[in-house]
Amino acid sequence: MPRVRFLPEGITVEVPLGNTLLQAAARAGIVLEGACGGEGVCGRCRVQVQEGKVTSPPNPRLSLQERQEGWVLACQAVPEGEVAVFVPESSVFTAHRVLKAEESLTLQTKEPLWWEEKLTLPPPTLEDNTDDWGRLSWALQQRGIAPLWPSRHLLAELPRTLRAADWQVKVELAFLDKALYELQGIKPAGRGEGTWGVAVDLGTTTVAAELVDLATGQVVATAGTYNRQAAFGDDVISRIVYATETPRGREELQQAILETVNGLIDELCREAGISFKDIRAVVGAGNTTMVHLLLNLDPTYIRLEPYVPAANAPPPVKAAKLGLKAHPEAWVYLVPGVASYVGGDVVAGVKVTGVGEEEELTLFLDIGTNGEMVLGNREWLMACACSAGPAFEGSGITCGMRAVAGAIEEVEVSPGGEEVFYRTVDGKKPLGICGSGLISLLSSLLRAGVIDRSGRFVEGLDTPRLREGEEGKEFVLVWGESTGHGRDIYVTQGDLQNLLRAKAAIFAGLRTLLSLVGLEAASLERVYIAGGFGRFIDVEDAIGIGMLPDLPRERYAYVGNTSLKGARLCLLSRRAWQETAELARRITYVELSVGNLFMEEFMAALFLPHTNADLFPSVKGA
Amino acid sequence: MPRVRFLPEGITVEVPLGNTLLQAAARAGIVLEGACGGEGVCGRCRVQVQEGKVTSPPNPRLSLQERQEGWVLACQAVPEGEVAVFVPESSVFTAHRVLKAEESLTLQTKEPLWWEEKLTLPPPTLEDNTDDWGRLSWALQQRGIAPLWPSRHLLAELPRTLRAADWQVKVELAFLDKALYELQGIKPAGRGEGTWGVAVDLGTTTVAAELVDLATGQVVATAGTYNRQAAFGDDVISRIVYATETPRGREELQQAILETVNGLIDELCREAGISFKDIRAVVGAGNTTMVHLLLNLDPTYIRLEPYVPAANAPPPVKAAKLGLKAHPEAWVYLVPGVASYVGGDVVAGVKVTGVGEEEELTLFLDIGTNGEMVLGNREWLMACACSAGPAFEGSGITCGMRAVAGAIEEVEVSPGGEEVFYRTVDGKKPLGICGSGLISLLSSLLRAGVIDRSGRFVEGLDTPRLREGEEGKEFVLVWGESTGHGRDIYVTQGDLQNLLRAKAAIFAGLRTLLSLVGLEAASLERVYIAGGFGRFIDVEDAIGIGMLPDLPRERYAYVGNTSLKGARLCLLSRRAWQETAELARRITYVELSVGNLFMEEFMAALFLPHTNADLFPSVKGA
Repeated sequence: MPRVRFLPEGITVEVPLGNTLLQAAARAGIVLEGACGGEGVCGRCRVQVQEGKVTSPPNPRLSLQERQEGWVLACQAVPEGEVAVFVPESSVFTAHRVLKAEESLTLQTKEPLWWEEKLTLPPPTLEDNTDDWGRLSWALQQRGIAPLWPSRHLLAELPRTLRAADWQVKVELAFLDKALYELQGIKPAGRGEGTWGVAVDLGTTTVAAELVDLATGQVVATAGTYNRQAAFGDDVISRIVYATETPRGREELQQAILETVNGLIDELCREAGISFKDIRAVVGAGNTTMVHLLLNLDPTYIRLEPYVPAANAPPPVKAAKLGLKAHPEAWVYLVPGVASYVGGDVVAGVKVTGVGEEEELTLFLDIGTNGEMVLGNREWLMACACSAGPAFEGSGITCGMRAVAGAIEEVEVSPGGEEVFYRTVDGKKPLGICGSGLISLLSSLLRAGVIDRSGRFVEGLDTPRLREGEEGKEFVLVWGESTGHGRDIYVTQGDLQNLLRAKAAIFAGLRTLLSLVGLEAASLERVYIAGGFGRFIDVEDAIGIGMLPDLPRERYAYVGNTSLKGARLCLLSRRAWQETAELARRITYVELSVGNLFMEEFMAALFLPHTNADLFPSVKGA
Repeated sequence: MPRVRFLPEGITVEVPLGNTLLQAAARAGIVLEGACGGEGVCGRCRVQVQEGKVTSPPNPRLSLQERQEGWVLACQAVPEGEVAVFVPESSVFTAHRVLKAEESLTLQTKEPLWWEEKLTLPPPTLEDNTDDWGRLSWALQQRGIAPLWPSRHLLAELPRTLRAADWQVKVELAFLDKALYELQGIKPAGRGEGTWGVAVDLGTTTVAAELVDLATGQVVATAGTYNRQAAFGDDVISRIVYATETPRGREELQQAILETVNGLIDELCREAGISFKDIRAVVGAGNTTMVHLLLNLDPTYIRLEPYVPAANAPPPVKAAKLGLKAHPEAWVYLVPGVASYVGGDVVAGVKVTGVGEEEELTLFLDIGTNGEMVLGNREWLMACACSAGPAFEGSGITCGMRAVAGAIEEVEVSPGGEEVFYRTVDGKKPLGICGSGLISLLSSLLRAGVIDRSGRFVEGLDTPRLREGEEGKEFVLVWGESTGHGRDIYVTQGDLQNLLRAKAAIFAGLRTLLSLVGLEAASLERVYIAGGFGRFIDVEDAIGIGMLPDLPRERYAYVGNTSLKGARLCLLSRRAWQETAELARRITYVELSVGNLFMEEFMAALFLPHTNADLFPSVKGA
């Protein structure tokens, strides 16, 4: 396999034969400029080959001298053997785009929810002949670990265990609740095996999991898959209906998510070469419905006014009792949620981004099927959920798709709508359009004059891309001849209205929260955006369509899947776990369906960018 | 069956045909004077028949006029039909004897370890749509009940349960540990069934249990039986040896005690007409070895220096997991102990008598196989155990027996040892001699000049009762013609030495404890004596032989089986349970085998009453 070293970073990757340098760069985590979808047209992805050989067709975007100096378009250049490539800053994709922060978290790895504590106990004497359990408890209490409960059978054999180890032991401890620890095992201090935990993001559509080395905090393996519950309904509401109105529906849905997670655990264990019995703790984060379905809690009243869950913070359960593949004594912890529609996934994100810990006013925005947001600082926190619909997850849009290879993630439409430039995830032939692409599309169509400020196609445009479809007007982004599946990729008037409603719901939710505390959007000092858009969010575009408030762009950060990161953080830090539980209690939930405020804001936001142009001073022509 | 009404108390009892008034009085809880063992000789048990008819032989102890006035000797008078009998104060047995205090305890019945809490929850609204579990937890937290853990399956159905009950519920709660409660069930507030708990005294020889109504605190039924573990050894040491040196020995011993307790529970349930599943909590108190054997904890190191138990305070276990007949979710709580030889039975006694709560210096003395004692006040508490041997339990003595019907409980020997007067439990023909009888015997033999101050039979006495037996000299208390089994009841030189060692061990233990804190026995303001002596203890005799210190007699109280009472107190009061656990931690254990102090005191106490006569100023001729 060819090997490519990217300079100046010095990152080396191996790529399959025939892959382009653009694909190799993506693999190396380097996102290159480019608006033509890898067609060799825009000429923005130029790189310089410094060592080795690449195959690259002649291209008018490069001069002869440039070609002699080794410059190529990454989207067309195919490496052979070992290659070193220099990437100029001008080719790196950054402007106005907030890339997903993938940096590893600063973790307190010394305090995982399950851990081994080394103890050297003073052997008993006639002067100090306290009981074995008391001696052990006391030693742990000195380290702040109390009260202590033994798991079954452990107490019975404690005397011989301690003496066989000559009072030098490693004790296996599980954190349970504030002020309650479980002693799960004792072994001689010398013996050392690895210990693992699993973090899971229990998404409605996809489920992702990480295998984590509990001793080092390192992620050893990751895996993701579709949630098998999808067979019973696409969104949480349809699943609640299935669970509550079908005989054994709850059991079926529980089985489906258990099989999904167990499948991921199998995959993680295979990759790491361990047995599932080596997994000593599992932390899951999901929305409130997902947690209910996993634990087989009655979800009926999540769906019915006044929208009450059975439990926001269910206590941990033993893996064996739940049916999860892990050590039978392992506890499964679920990150606590706030309300029926602000779940543990959001709380995990708030925790990971530190929203509740700083002095500055911060917004955490998780855009999935619902737009969920948390606003506040270390003094106060408020949350709401607005039914944005699944548009930004690529669902409910004719050619929508998730942000996987082949998804259009950025679009540029020429004035009048004649030409369309685009970029896909991994540079593959386009298959559809993902969340970031849709935001980019809406913004671009507006700038190009293809749609008006109410999101409707402008009459009388002279472009073959705008055509009459089965359900009204539609605009073709990519003709079938250029797509991965041979069919046109297009957007309909209905899609545009869905997008408009989705962005309006998010902005209206934010305005409602802000007005409840008497603040303006300008007071937001930091905005974290989480969700499944793709690899980045184009903030300029998102502001351009009025989805995000018109703030200095540097106040934005795109943080990706914070649900999984938060679950991992909790797994690796019992302090973080407790703080997360406390965070869930601190967040005040605002029910947007109470009063008219949200509905008024929503109506006002059904315009590009907004009916009140003063809210978007930096948006041209707003 | 004849019915006897005793005046002036007005207590009425039914007795089998042929029973004497003495037996009827015993049944009524009235202990009459008498030193001849019901032979009609001493004439002390005179009572006056006021109504009805009794059959009574003429007796020289009564004058004709007395007989005409209805006076009879209770030990010879047999009632027919309905009878009313006046008992003069002179015939009631009181002088210098401390009767077992049978008064019911002042119990905080509103706080049992398992209880139902009535709650009226505010139904959720859009403005207050917290989760069901949060709503319930909050309501309980307002009453100081937090944190809360649900038992399995309960959380899953919580939403429907709460709504079906229209938010008016009775929740079933179990106290687990400081700051941890378990929610075991929820039902509509109206429904009312009884709820029961069981208190158990896990004695080495006998096991006693009470069925308690958890709502009222009333004892509904009581039962007692021999510990089936006796088949594996008489005392704790031989059982530890069996448990640790026989394959599956621990399991056999655990089965034996479980069968014993389950048998008692069957009996209690039959008597009360309930199912064992109605028992929602069990509290047991026993010595440290008994608790280990019940829980199948490794007892090996209790027996080996430095005498370390696996656990003094094992956490509660579920009845179903242990194999105890009760509601499967019921917790079985064991009263915490202090050390290998100062167990939960002693701690229960200390709690019930309030030793650790008063300002005055108090001694709690539990005399069984070991003499266990706790000394102190609300500021400090110290405990020790001295190997008194089982003499006072009637074991290890040729004609010893437990304090059941037919046991000689009081003895008077005439000067020179010619005549012996005695009294038996329930006035039955004598079968042996129990603890209180042995103390009385030792004291009386000394007063009568049959033994000397070193406990040896005096040479050259002219009485047929003193004879040469197989193992040296022995003294006959009752000739075979007068006993229940036709064999002589006697005491040997070896028995006397056993008794001497037993009383010396107790007194030496007390002296050692006192000297460690620099106090004299005279500082003791109160002495509680617990143990299986019988119905009373003759303090004058106990002081006379030097077993108890020479204090004003009114400072003594005999409190009987405080292990069972303490277990009941804990069952009925979670505050008491926590205080008892705290008490166990507060008591400082003194190992008497460390240093020479105990051995010196023991040697000095091997004399009647003591080698240092100054310690017993009130004992004549000491």
